[in-house]
Amino acid sequence: MSLLLVDNRGPDLAPWKVPARRVSMVPASSATHTFLRLRRGGPATLAAQLVEQLRRAVLEGVLQPERPLPSSRELARQLGVSRNTAVAAYEALAADGTIVMRPRRAPVVAHVPARGGPGGGRAQAAPPPPPRASKSARRLAAVVPADKLDALLGSRARSRPFGVGLPDLELLPWRILERCVARRFRSMSPADALYDDPRGALLLRRAVLHHAAVARGVRATVDQVFITEGSQAALDLCCRALLDPGDAAWVEDPGPLALRAAVHMAGARLVPIPVDEDGLRVQAGARRAPRAKVAFVSPASAFPTGARLTLPRRIELMAWAGKAGSVVVEVDYEGELRFDGTPLPSLLALDMEGVKDRVIHVGTFSRSLFPGLRLGFMIVPPAMVRAVAQMRAASTRSPPYLLQAAVADFIDEGHFARHLRKLKQATRRRRDVLLGELAGLLPDMGWVRAPAGGAVLTLELPAGVDDVALVQALAARGVDALALSRSTAARRGPSAPGLILGFGAHSEAALREAARTLAGAVREAVGGGG
Amino acid sequence: MSLLLVDNRGPDLAPWKVPARRVSMVPASSATHTFLRLRRGGPATLAAQLVEQLRRAVLEGVLQPERPLPSSRELARQLGVSRNTAVAAYEALAADGTIVMRPRRAPVVAHVPARGGPGGGRAQAAPPPPPRASKSARRLAAVVPADKLDALLGSRARSRPFGVGLPDLELLPWRILERCVARRFRSMSPADALYDDPRGALLLRRAVLHHAAVARGVRATVDQVFITEGSQAALDLCCRALLDPGDAAWVEDPGPLALRAAVHMAGARLVPIPVDEDGLRVQAGARRAPRAKVAFVSPASAFPTGARLTLPRRIELMAWAGKAGSVVVEVDYEGELRFDGTPLPSLLALDMEGVKDRVIHVGTFSRSLFPGLRLGFMIVPPAMVRAVAQMRAASTRSPPYLLQAAVADFIDEGHFARHLRKLKQATRRRRDVLLGELAGLLPDMGWVRAPAGGAVLTLELPAGVDDVALVQALAARGVDALALSRSTAARRGPSAPGLILGFGAHSEAALREAARTLAGAVREAVGGGG
Repeated sequence: MSLLLVDNRGPDLAPWKVPARRVSMVPASSATHTFLRLRRGGPATLAAQLVEQLRRAVLEGVLQPERPLPSSRELARQLGVSRNTAVAAYEALAADGTIVMRPRRAPVVAHVPARGGPGGGRAQAAPPPPPRASKSARRLAAVVPADKLDALLGSRARSRPFGVGLPDLELLPWRILERCVARRFRSMSPADALYDDPRGALLLRRAVLHHAAVARGVRATVDQVFITEGSQAALDLCCRALLDPGDAAWVEDPGPLALRAAVHMAGARLVPIPVDEDGLRVQAGARRAPRAKVAFVSPASAFPTGARLTLPRRIELMAWAGKAGSVVVEVDYEGELRFDGTPLPSLLALDMEGVKDRVIHVGTFSRSLFPGLRLGFMIVPPAMVRAVAQMRAASTRSPPYLLQAAVADFIDEGHFARHLRKLKQATRRRRDVLLGELAGLLPDMGWVRAPAGGAVLTLELPAGVDDVALVQALAARGVDALALSRSTAARRGPSAPGLILGFGAHSEAALREAARTLAGAVREAVGGGG
Repeated sequence: MSLLLVDNRGPDLAPWKVPARRVSMVPASSATHTFLRLRRGGPATLAAQLVEQLRRAVLEGVLQPERPLPSSRELARQLGVSRNTAVAAYEALAADGTIVMRPRRAPVVAHVPARGGPGGGRAQAAPPPPPRASKSARRLAAVVPADKLDALLGSRARSRPFGVGLPDLELLPWRILERCVARRFRSMSPADALYDDPRGALLLRRAVLHHAAVARGVRATVDQVFITEGSQAALDLCCRALLDPGDAAWVEDPGPLALRAAVHMAGARLVPIPVDEDGLRVQAGARRAPRAKVAFVSPASAFPTGARLTLPRRIELMAWAGKAGSVVVEVDYEGELRFDGTPLPSLLALDMEGVKDRVIHVGTFSRSLFPGLRLGFMIVPPAMVRAVAQMRAASTRSPPYLLQAAVADFIDEGHFARHLRKLKQATRRRRDVLLGELAGLLPDMGWVRAPAGGAVLTLELPAGVDDVALVQALAARGVDALALSRSTAARRGPSAPGLILGFGAHSEAALREAARTLAGAVREAVGGGG
């Protein structure tokens, strides 16, 4: 019977630092060395340590393929452990095929493929290249600025003026939301804990549809409603369900970077269409990409200018889509937040041939409640329901039921409508405060577009200002903003510099103070030197 | 000044049923018809009704482009509403560009593009075809059986024996979980409510990594860990990040349908590789698709046979991946649930050149906690972190912080490890009960594979049995099962019929009763007639 070599010399010789060399089997009597070092009283049981170390020895070629091992009795004796420990270790090793048990004989090491001699293959020449990312991933890497990703990795979002796309967390009725979550958790049934319809929880789909019908004139059935993990997830689904590589897609220019990222991931050709004060210039789009497969448009409030799509443009858009066989994706980031006048109707309120079949409405609870909920929704044409549901079933399925049910209760009990009213009033006041401050502080420095809805305004700056550097300088002073030049699609000549300022998430006092900081930095950047 | 035609004849004439015809402007004195019908005391304000109906009139061509409207004073008088109501309505219509306001003059209807004469374009010939789904969506539709999707739509998952992939909801410590959620909600900070690192919450990534290191020998850093919306979302991400259309991907055959769906969505070429009692037959894979970009494999427990990948096979697999420049995705659906012996180590525990750079480990909380949580995780090679993070940022971002934080607490406080122990004991007892029942009831009817882990076993049936029909017959008798023939990749000749039975989610009594029902149906299907 063969035994293991024993090496008790190095007290610091951790098992995972065993030198990878061949060890021959010697009779028990001469066993003075071992690569096995068992620690009593540590977190791992003796059997687990034995399994781990023997497996490593096989793997590293320290124990040779098809050579016999000591019997469990012999192993136990050698190591001073109980027979049960040795048996348990051998059984575990047999279970994963490291060793082969034989009736009434000692086990043998399994046939393990050669891995390039001593050192377990470590001595190979150049390591093989790392795996190559898909075209989709590489397209995305090419379009998303590296510093954007750096800012996301390893850090959580912060809420400072004038951060964009942030909700006001102070105004949210947290206690009510908490009660909705707790109540739903307590009353959770088995069905609530299992898999749901890939479109999401029926009760939230109903609540969303009812709200959209009342507030925005949406006409659809609950079958068409999907709950998603936010609006970006919905946009990504639209791209995946509709766009093939090379297909053209209209996007508003300027427009949000995240939407462009989703279009790039799908490999589609991004066609930036200018936006004027009447919204997307449909006729320009029809000239540039008459057969675009999808048009992404924010009729209630284009980002970042706040322009709404006028009724004539809406009709032009749908007439074009009908002729071109295209789909219009209505991206409604802040459509709920129209504070001047009544909310604008959704494209799905337009009573026109084909609207029902060609419009996807995308919304989110990230602005009206909070982003950490990860809830948004989309309403898709009846003919697309099955395709999108299949994609959901093959990817994220539906969001967590608990949160969907809690938000449905929050809507159904009237808290949501009440919260929106408060939010709109506060947002309008904040817009007025910020406009007043900017007019006073920067009377001749730029051009402010004041929106009638949404919580973002743009400050256009004189040509030549480096708005990306200005944003960095502002960040160092505790004020956030986005560079306008980054919101325009690349490769269209030098774009106007400017700042995109979110004003929905902070108190009037905080906005006033941040406006003073902003004005100082802007004056320096424009060259007035303060 | 022009006025609107007034038509007060039809009391049932709902505003949205106005006949679409042109109405000319006539002097106020002869106004006897109107298409405007305002209802007092209804849910919508008079102004909102006015906006809705005037907008529709413009849209349908009832009001002509660029023609003047009555002044707000005149409109108010005509309709018997307050001046404020009329002004509010006009302002809302001007806001969306339906009409154009003029200083000191009556507003005009905006220039609205012609839509094909009276009827607002409704009289067009054939409606344009519905939008065409992407290749990705069509590939998916071609591979997912329609009845699978039908079963998902409009219904929530049910938990009956022998449903597959279901957790035991009775054993879960609900009160503790509820407390974890409630505590995190109460102590939520602004950062918890905003956007997070696209890899997910740091505290859950840490907890997952620690657990995986202790239980499965995973060696990785927290930078490599992503929290996803379940394991399917992680698999979809793997496909999107690595596979281009036409790339080959190994999948285990038989294997789970959902994984195949994700591979098809990416347009990759699915290469089914047979599984024997030592797991994936790596050499068969290397012959069939030597340069496959990705190999999907479940080393701890192949679905549905329960076979584990032996150490020699693991080494073969990684040696192949290194040579081919491929990535191995370790799909660990039920790796936690190894109840015979100790859990098998992850591929990421293998101390072999290139493992760290070529293995993606995918896990889920759907089996160990519950699917409605929508939480899973993946550990990716360092070189892939940025690409995957970018994809996350452009799609679903990260799961809801609240649930991630609650699960992290559940793990860190030791509840998870305790729950897993209970779960494994119960699962082993249930396996033994079901094996005993099947052996007694169907002594000569099939071949049962008894797993050492996981909560699924397969019952192979004599050739010629229609297992899909058998599954339907069972469902009608209150027993769920999956058809084994559906878990094998299509177009590989007739596959062995059989049933896939999940036994982890129900009590021993429920399993005994279901086994009797099952045995009756199987005997009928095999032809014994009971």
